[in-house]
Amino acid sequence: MNKKTIHEYNMKVRDYECDAQGIVNNANYQHYYEVARHEFLEQHNLNFYELHEQGIDAVVISVYIRYKHSLRGSDDFICTIDSLEKEGIRYIFNQKIIRLKDNKICSTAKIEIACMINGKVGKPEIFDEAFAKYF
Amino acid sequence: MNKKTIHEYNMKVRDYECDAQGIVNNANYQHYYEVARHEFLEQHNLNFYELHEQGIDAVVISVYIRYKHSLRGSDDFICTIDSLEKEGIRYIFNQKIIRLKDNKICSTAKIEIACMINGKVGKPEIFDEAFAKYF
Amino acid sequence: MNKKTIHEYNMKVRDYECDAQGIVNNANYQHYYEVARHEFLEQHNLNFYELHEQGIDAVVISVYIRYKHSLRGSDDFICTIDSLEKEGIRYIFNQKIIRLKDNKICSTAKIEIACMINGKVGKPEIFDEAFAKYF
Amino acid sequence: MNKKTIHEYNMKVRDYECDAQGIVNNANYQHYYEVARHEFLEQHNLNFYELHEQGIDAVVISVYIRYKHSLRGSDDFICTIDSLEKEGIRYIFNQKIIRLKDNKICSTAKIEIACMINGKVGKPEIFDEAFAKYF
Repeated sequence: MNKKTIHEYNMKVRDYECDAQGIVNNANYQHYYEVARHEFLEQHNLNFYELHEQGIDAVVISVYIRYKHSLRGSDDFICTIDSLEKEGIRYIFNQKIIRLKDNKICSTAKIEIACMINGKVGKPEIFDEAFAKYF
Repeated sequence: MNKKTIHEYNMKVRDYECDAQGIVNNANYQHYYEVARHEFLEQHNLNFYELHEQGIDAVVISVYIRYKHSLRGSDDFICTIDSLEKEGIRYIFNQKIIRLKDNKICSTAKIEIACMINGKVGKPEIFDEAFAKYF
Repeated sequence: MNKKTIHEYNMKVRDYECDAQGIVNNANYQHYYEVARHEFLEQHNLNFYELHEQGIDAVVISVYIRYKHSLRGSDDFICTIDSLEKEGIRYIFNQKIIRLKDNKICSTAKIEIACMINGKVGKPEIFDEAFAKYF
Repeated sequence: MNKKTIHEYNMKVRDYECDAQGIVNNANYQHYYEVARHEFLEQHNLNFYELHEQGIDAVVISVYIRYKHSLRGSDDFICTIDSLEKEGIRYIFNQKIIRLKDNKICSTAKIEIACMINGKVGKPEIFDEAFAKYF
């Protein structure tokens, strides 16, 4: 369905992100996916921290992450957003991580986000306007 | 279904684990779940790092984590393993995180693990023996 | 000079804190030292995050950390505050990390803290009152 | 004394690196400094993990880090190596972090490194050869 990604962000594994197995610790993939989403927000003039200061918080409701191949120290990779869906008050980001040296998909993720406005679940028009073209 | 947990580990949020929203960053829950599993392994005389040195690596295949309530700085919580299932060569850990001050379930998780022996997917009797009573 | 510590906090290495060398990554020691200081604050009814909400931020001005022996996965250790000095508007925490299994000093640290009140360097009586007995 | 830097690496603050004060947690600066050093190694065809596999570990003996201005979410910055000294078996890296939007020096660091060969302090010619031109 998604012919192409709607966002791509280039990153490189930092050695401290690897654990004693010599591979990137699983939790760090969640960080990578978050970084790519925040970069995507920025491209739409939405800054995570400034939104927070205004009382608007994008919060993660669930993550489903699959691990297929391990990233290792110094590996270059791309973290994508392949598609963005809207279901009620939730936004669903489909993402993946591709290792550059062999083009392998190392991980895929489905991340559900909701928005809190002053601490309550809300419908932030600010996001709908920014993302409308992707639904 | 799970009358009781098969493992519980007490932890406390560290301030650096919170992000600019003032709540624990989502990726850190994955760390908490990992810590509880490794403690569980240790109780069965299985040490994550020593296993790695022997060529046996437990690797995460997938995580499905739901976030219900946010943990904040200094919150005390319990990270549980509620049940453990075996499906072919995969072990599935059902876990949750309960905030102590109000007994709220902050997060639940289903973590799929497989075992690598010298870099290849394997059937480590060492785990089957240790966990047999939980299946 | 320091006959005894003024604060001790028991911790245990978490496997994800180790890097590919199989030992705790150096930056994590700084986390450990911070955790011990925040626990110390809490014992004096000062909560890092609540202070921040009130416009009072304890900020680190400098750290000098020496690494003597490496901590590894699952190692139990104590993180101490040995003494606390006041120099002008700065508080200096002398801390160390002791591995329990052999009582080795793995690291020592000298951490300089200043206080910001609403973003400006200030003299928070709240800290002076809490810590007076240690100077 | 240092007319110019011997290495510069561009980075950008990731939101999860900020803590509840809304600024980058101090320990993360140590990560940044490490990343810049490992990139520097790579430029000299020395890979941190491959060296470890060969039994050669660069280990940090001490860090002295000063914090002058805070980095915040999304800030672009440069992490430098300004100079490299050799004292006996120790290498001393003088580094700093400069925020790009206003060219402010946010932090400076003096990091002492020693080399372990198969677990013992050693004199790795491999480093001396690579770095000779900087002493």
